[in-house]
Amino acid sequence: MMLCADMTNKNFRRWIAKTKKERGSNIILALDYTIPNPRELLLQSKKTIETLSPHICGVKFNRHLVLPLGLYSGVKELLDLTRTLGLPSIMDCKINDIGSTNRMIAHHYYTAGFDAVTANPFIGWEDGLNQVFKISNELNKGVILLVYMSHKGAVEGYAQRVKNPNTNKVYFQYQIFAEKALKWDADGVVVGATYPQKIFEINKILNGKIPIYSPGIGVQGGNIELVAKSRSDYFIIGRSILYAKDPIQSVRKFNEIINTS
Amino acid sequence: MMLCADMTNKNFRRWIAKTKKERGSNIILALDYTIPNPRELLLQSKKTIETLSPHICGVKFNRHLVLPLGLYSGVKELLDLTRTLGLPSIMDCKINDIGSTNRMIAHHYYTAGFDAVTANPFIGWEDGLNQVFKISNELNKGVILLVYMSHKGAVEGYAQRVKNPNTNKVYFQYQIFAEKALKWDADGVVVGATYPQKIFEINKILNGKIPIYSPGIGVQGGNIELVAKSRSDYFIIGRSILYAKDPIQSVRKFNEIINTS
Repeated sequence: MMLCADMTNKNFRRWIAKTKKERGSNIILALDYTIPNPRELLLQSKKTIETLSPHICGVKFNRHLVLPLGLYSGVKELLDLTRTLGLPSIMDCKINDIGSTNRMIAHHYYTAGFDAVTANPFIGWEDGLNQVFKISNELNKGVILLVYMSHKGAVEGYAQRVKNPNTNKVYFQYQIFAEKALKWDADGVVVGATYPQKIFEINKILNGKIPIYSPGIGVQGGNIELVAKSRSDYFIIGRSILYAKDPIQSVRKFNEIINTS
Repeated sequence: MMLCADMTNKNFRRWIAKTKKERGSNIILALDYTIPNPRELLLQSKKTIETLSPHICGVKFNRHLVLPLGLYSGVKELLDLTRTLGLPSIMDCKINDIGSTNRMIAHHYYTAGFDAVTANPFIGWEDGLNQVFKISNELNKGVILLVYMSHKGAVEGYAQRVKNPNTNKVYFQYQIFAEKALKWDADGVVVGATYPQKIFEINKILNGKIPIYSPGIGVQGGNIELVAKSRSDYFIIGRSILYAKDPIQSVRKFNEIINTS
């Protein structure tokens, strides 16, 4: 499939902001189907991207598709389709390995056609995430850091209190991660929709310099009206749309609630 | 390829300990080739597994192979071969996602034939790693937790000081992770060979109840004699063997040093 020249080498952050504005939607579709048959999984995923593309601003993929379909086969087909429809794609791989492996992971996802990856700031900079930022900057791709995840157990790590041995001051882990996102110039941070108060707090630290991406609305328990008011920039929604009786109607309703909050 | 009955449904932890004893080696080969051509990558990986299998006790895979070869195609072929040669296989996927995704990731790796996965304890238990332990226990597979990684930036997270808000006591992050490994009954913990003093300390916490796996020897700077004395149970070695002039000679030499330390 040929790519239009104006769709290649786009800066991820500007591209998704533009798409959000043009389509009147800040919903990123999380394409997390759990259909056991790979052929059906691929077909259903294609159909959903095509049907919903006018009403969303991006598509997020996870291991739900990469492992059964293969990166350079099924997933690549879906990425080509996503790009042809003018949407940026995010690989939610939550990179957290040593530098050489991180670079290898990012290299493959970008080569297949992804526009951004997610990564875990816990892993640190030197010989760690520096390699992810390096390759992403080289290729004009985006890095989205996990600052506070959406699941219940997230409090164990993201809300733990960390003591700075030099100043003796104590900070919440998510405050440290938000500061790192600023320092490393991340293109986005993930803060779970299940923790609207944290979105509010982290927004204050970021001061509008880095967009917030919030997963966890619907099935995971996040309340969209509350989250919309807490000023997330993007909403990552999967199962609540994928398994709705009428997915288009579902996305439209989400857009309406967000746009009027 | 048919599997011998006595090689299926083995308990990972006992199996790798038995292989270590029988082959006189506690080296786990990290099959992290970076050969760009997928066909060559697959052939070279097969050749290496076959050649080195008598001198190692397990094989560790990473995204270096999964992303270009595909899990259910090339990697599955390598897993069948590894199992036929009597060796357990570890997928170093460093799981760190929400519960439903963690379960999906582990499900695919186990279905393809892996015997254990690595996971990041930072992600927490509830609706997090509980799902990895659940599926692993159901299928008699192993979970290896990252307690202190091998790269330079590991100090940022793994060596940070965490304050318990109830007791006001301060602990190192790796101490908390080692305690979680005990509480959750992990089958192994990863502690970088580049931090031999930490291996020694973590060994004291674990008190021989959970084996330590140490990556980072050779290319990453870990000194094998020093690490062998600090009492790691398994050594994960990749590039130092894969890119040696004579890989068999290289593995034999590592075995000799470890067995006489």
